[in-house]
Amino acid sequence: QSLKIGLIPADGIGKEVIPTAKAAIEALGSDIPKPEFIDLLAGFEHFAKNGIALPDETVNILKNECDCALFGSVSSPSRKVVGYSSPIVALRKQLDLYANIRPVTSVAANPGEKPNVDLVVVRENTECLYVKQENLIIGEHGKEARATRLITERASRRIGQMAFEIAQARPRKHLTVIHKSNVLSVTDGLFRETVRGVPSLPDVGGRFDGVTIAEQLVDSAVYRLFREPQIYDVMVAPNLYGDILSDAAAALVGSLGLVPSINAGDNFVMGEPVHGSAPDIAGQSIANPLASIRSAALMLRHLGYSKGADRLDKAVDEVIREGKVLTPDLGGKAKTGEVLDEVLRRI
Amino acid sequence: QSLKIGLIPADGIGKEVIPTAKAAIEALGSDIPKPEFIDLLAGFEHFAKNGIALPDETVNILKNECDCALFGSVSSPSRKVVGYSSPIVALRKQLDLYANIRPVTSVAANPGEKPNVDLVVVRENTECLYVKQENLIIGEHGKEARATRLITERASRRIGQMAFEIAQARPRKHLTVIHKSNVLSVTDGLFRETVRGVPSLPDVGGRFDGVTIAEQLVDSAVYRLFREPQIYDVMVAPNLYGDILSDAAAALVGSLGLVPSINAGDNFVMGEPVHGSAPDIAGQSIANPLASIRSAALMLRHLGYSKGADRLDKAVDEVIREGKVLTPDLGGKAKTGEVLDEVLRRI
Ligand SMILES: CC(C)[C@H](C(=O)O)[C@@H](O)C(=O)O
Ligand SMILES: CC(C)[C@H](C(=O)O)[C@@H](O)C(=O)O
Repeated sequence: QSLKIGLIPADGIGKEVIPTAKAAIEALGSDIPKPEFIDLLAGFEHFAKNGIALPDETVNILKNECDCALFGSVSSPSRKVVGYSSPIVALRKQLDLYANIRPVTSVAANPGEKPNVDLVVVRENTECLYVKQENLIIGEHGKEARATRLITERASRRIGQMAFEIAQARPRKHLTVIHKSNVLSVTDGLFRETVRGVPSLPDVGGRFDGVTIAEQLVDSAVYRLFREPQIYDVMVAPNLYGDILSDAAAALVGSLGLVPSINAGDNFVMGEPVHGSAPDIAGQSIANPLASIRSAALMLRHLGYSKGADRLDKAVDEVIREGKVLTPDLGGKAKTGEVLDEVLRRI
Repeated sequence: QSLKIGLIPADGIGKEVIPTAKAAIEALGSDIPKPEFIDLLAGFEHFAKNGIALPDETVNILKNECDCALFGSVSSPSRKVVGYSSPIVALRKQLDLYANIRPVTSVAANPGEKPNVDLVVVRENTECLYVKQENLIIGEHGKEARATRLITERASRRIGQMAFEIAQARPRKHLTVIHKSNVLSVTDGLFRETVRGVPSLPDVGGRFDGVTIAEQLVDSAVYRLFREPQIYDVMVAPNLYGDILSDAAAALVGSLGLVPSINAGDNFVMGEPVHGSAPDIAGQSIANPLASIRSAALMLRHLGYSKGADRLDKAVDEVIREGKVLTPDLGGKAKTGEVLDEVLRRI
């Protein structure tokens, strides 16, 4: 039996880091079923050439042939491009990957960084402003654009449930619900109440009794994240707040180049580094491969291959702790391939 | 001739810090017209007692009798309260205070803080998700809540113009437009294009020729704000991003208790500390008065009384730099009144 992994490097440094995750997975040998990789297309560069950001074929192969996938990163056009729409947002929706799970942990803190970060951002991944229902009209005073922000009970409940599961499995068992219900009393009110209601759902029983629940307005959450990151264990947030919070948390631990994620649904999981396509450094072979390798580890862990995942994580942590072979985003001078080699030596 | 200043302490520590701003203004003597203060009601506590968060009388007196105002802070109910709606959001809209201007500057950085922050967040103050158009329906899978995010050309143009004016008057003359147009191509696309278009408006002439314009996605803006705050000079953002960004920036300089703002329109200005009502410390006389005193300075400066404003700012900066008499949020042991006395001695 094999493990079929779709690879979607997409744009920019995605093309440099996804191959490193592939190599790391291959190095695991018999800790996982024999991996089979399937190269798949998507991205802004693909759109620029072919007019399609996310080919149907990519989605079909992911759905019908793959057990899981790794996604790289997409570039954003610097001006509005007619017909272009982000393939990662589309993929999350089409595969119903409703949870974006982003653990942020400090391994070795440089000066100015926070030594005591150990949190997971659990981001709702299918709705909020990401439903992309927008329109433009010409009103009395010029153009007026409107976007819809959708928050449903169903999506809030399943992301809440996921967040409680994750909190329950961690030593501190602490969950903070992020919202802005002092302004958005209906939408964020629904999110807050629904997440808070998860422990009393009929099928939950007393399973989440040990989890403490707190809450915070998104603006003060960002403030406190920077001042006292140690107060956070698991944070659950609607889509856009989760997007911002995970970047904020990444800033505390040294580099976006360290922060992994998975996009998880009930039937599929896709690893994805939190960083973007980084056009400023693309093509120079200096992108940090660690976020992608960690994303592979998260993906494997989600699928139940915790032994393989542990080996990847341990190797990455050692390389960071040793601090000798690091890419420039971490103050080092190493190339992507050199960091990969260090990881491979330790797997 | 007198300067009529409405005082709306509202909730929590607002009631402790607004009197300090009043005292600081009174200490300015002949640098400003003789101040006359008018006490006005608003807030969640007022709502809890009287069922009204923002009395019409408050709005009428502000509109018809006051030259400017100082607002304290409002508490947010911990659960949805029928009929309650934030009075500060309502005031900004009813007085058409379309710009929320929040300068964040490091004066003396403690360990773990950033020494090189000197930026201004210029936040659009009337629309985005703050239009509060929300509804709830029962759909096939339970409750569905929707909110409208409104971005107009008119509001984007006037906030853009305000941001260019501010950037133009600063040494670096650098402006960063914050948006998320990779997802919100219509609404944030309109914001971005409109702000970028300001220098070529017919009535602008070449006035903004010296201003450099950059842009950033809101998630990476928060990331870079933590990593390299020195890259920012003036940031202009739609309402919600501005809310989050100003709290993020405040975290870098030691305390929300230091960060002032004004809500400015074409005909009125209202100073407001960026911090909230802080129920955890309210009533203990340990709230930091400096954000309110700085808000008074900003307000006076906006009205053209720069000599008075300079004296307030200088006194505040000295107290911070000296570092002996500070409230607990800055690691000190002083009471609100003791910090005020230090400021007054230096005015
Ligand atoms: C590229 C962009 C659409 C995406 C998002 O906003 O979700 C990115 O910022 C992320 O965090 O994965
Ligand atoms: C109290 C709240 C409505 C307000 C806002 O979101 O604008 C506050 O956070 C602020 O920044 O002034």
